[in-house]
Amino acid sequence: MSQEDSSFQSIRWDDDHLTILDQTFLPDREVYIDLDSVGQVWDAIKKQKVRGAPVIGIAGAYGLYFGVQDLADSTFQTFYSEAQRIADYIKTAQPTVMNLSWSLKRMLTTIYALKEEPIADIKQKMLETAITIHDEDRRTCKSIGENGVELVQKDSGILTHDNTGGLATGEYGTALSVIIHAHEDGKVKMVWVNETRPLLQGSRLTAWELKKSEVPQKLHIDSAAASLMKNGEVDLVIVGADRISSRGDTFSRIGTYNLAVLADAHDIPFYVAAPLSTVDMDLEDSSEFELEEREPDEVTHFANKETAPAKVDVYNPAFDITPHHLITAFITEKGIIKPEFNENFEGFLG
Amino acid sequence: MSQEDSSFQSIRWDDDHLTILDQTFLPDREVYIDLDSVGQVWDAIKKQKVRGAPVIGIAGAYGLYFGVQDLADSTFQTFYSEAQRIADYIKTAQPTVMNLSWSLKRMLTTIYALKEEPIADIKQKMLETAITIHDEDRRTCKSIGENGVELVQKDSGILTHDNTGGLATGEYGTALSVIIHAHEDGKVKMVWVNETRPLLQGSRLTAWELKKSEVPQKLHIDSAAASLMKNGEVDLVIVGADRISSRGDTFSRIGTYNLAVLADAHDIPFYVAAPLSTVDMDLEDSSEFELEEREPDEVTHFANKETAPAKVDVYNPAFDITPHHLITAFITEKGIIKPEFNENFEGFLG
Repeated sequence: MSQEDSSFQSIRWDDDHLTILDQTFLPDREVYIDLDSVGQVWDAIKKQKVRGAPVIGIAGAYGLYFGVQDLADSTFQTFYSEAQRIADYIKTAQPTVMNLSWSLKRMLTTIYALKEEPIADIKQKMLETAITIHDEDRRTCKSIGENGVELVQKDSGILTHDNTGGLATGEYGTALSVIIHAHEDGKVKMVWVNETRPLLQGSRLTAWELKKSEVPQKLHIDSAAASLMKNGEVDLVIVGADRISSRGDTFSRIGTYNLAVLADAHDIPFYVAAPLSTVDMDLEDSSEFELEEREPDEVTHFANKETAPAKVDVYNPAFDITPHHLITAFITEKGIIKPEFNENFEGFLG
Repeated sequence: MSQEDSSFQSIRWDDDHLTILDQTFLPDREVYIDLDSVGQVWDAIKKQKVRGAPVIGIAGAYGLYFGVQDLADSTFQTFYSEAQRIADYIKTAQPTVMNLSWSLKRMLTTIYALKEEPIADIKQKMLETAITIHDEDRRTCKSIGENGVELVQKDSGILTHDNTGGLATGEYGTALSVIIHAHEDGKVKMVWVNETRPLLQGSRLTAWELKKSEVPQKLHIDSAAASLMKNGEVDLVIVGADRISSRGDTFSRIGTYNLAVLADAHDIPFYVAAPLSTVDMDLEDSSEFELEEREPDEVTHFANKETAPAKVDVYNPAFDITPHHLITAFITEKGIIKPEFNENFEGFLG
């Protein structure tokens, strides 16, 4: 199945099955595939046909719904144990993605809350919960986009990093949701897209999404961002976040901190767009963030071709940390949050 | 011909022929080829078997020497016209490389200065001039390296960009000459190598050279440089330059300005290593630098694989400009030059 219009959905519920955009074919081809079993969902997550933490969480919830449909009409306890076993299996597809653990846990909590009801009814209500998780994510992303528009002046040049769009979320995305909503408002002169080495999420995914939405864009290597800022092409930077500490230190795709330093040096506002669920009030100091290093061959190889001498040592962090003082404001589903972040997060989360 | 020891020479005169390291095989294989005709030299320059402006200039000089050997013993004027024609032909291999035009012009000037001598003697003296051009480049690079060592403290982490090593010059290089001389002095804890998108000169060439010299190194994506600086891994940055204005504004490989801003924000010294011939005292304002944009497919493709949506607009500058106030000092063959650069360049060049 394939579609050619200007919109797309990374994940969609169609009556009795899930339709996903298989992201392994991007940016070459837009291929949609249908999933209607837990095994297919597991495979789609494992092989990164769906990617981006929110989408993985949504897919996992539908996967658990599929998984329990074939369970026998036994006692609640047996049913619940089987559902837990299936959830554990789904988690093995991407064990480190917090949204996946979170959505599966929420599905299991739903089951447990319905323990007095007939198994057939529980099975049905699991679909409602999966759809609710999906809808909440879409509404959150839409609100982030709408709230961010006020920060964008007419004829703005906006620089962004990574893929933070509808491909990674239920719809719209986070930073990209702001950009697309600002474009709909006629405020965007140009989006400058960091290619985002090593995995090129900017080139492969963000450029593809902006093209679908017909937003004017130019793609560049990450280290050309400084020149663009010096040349006056960039009025603001908007990026996403994976985790935010209580004082506003932000854990994001590697290269984000680089941009934050550059924006500061050129007096350009630097915004982080993220759902409030990303804020971890138990985490104050950014030194508590764990910095994962990924496989060296992401840097030393490309399309199976060696681009560096054999066995060269590599530093390949997946993320970096942007300290709160370099962030102008956070754009969330409940509104814009300015410093002092600690105090203001309390207000928005309370 | 192939060699396995820890040293290499990008270009070497061997009695009656030139031996070059064919850089199109790097970093996979170290292949040396022999050249003894002007056609072979033209081909090596054209196909980037030799690359880096200084090496291209050196190869061109030897190429002209080869080219005139078969000319008949005619009048001086006929000989000189033929030599000019051969020089023009060599230039077509890389018409924009200033060092190539410069070295061919110097060879022709030599011929003209010898116009009273027998053609056979002139032919022989052209080899001496080519060897002189080659030797001067080696001595300049060696002096840059030796002069820069005093700027490196013991146990330093040094970050560098692009390929500025022996592959691009007669020997040693510029920024890499400083690094290798500091390593020989036991001062280098770690060299952090920017991969240098889009063409990966850092991964493919600098990492290869450092490995040959057994200098401890780690390779990383360009946008990880900021995190390395924040984490205290970088004590100084050393880069090369293509052209320097009279007040010290520096025209270099794209990404250099990005590094200069980061170094300034982290209070890390930022050094530019370059021969004094790079300083253009007739150029004061960096706005006079012409900024070339290269082919978009360097950003949108890799090893013939498409990595971005078809026909996406691309900003692909080859160079950027680092303003003089971000540069701690220049490292040249005559010594370290500190601000005010304009005054001090005059002293060193005078």
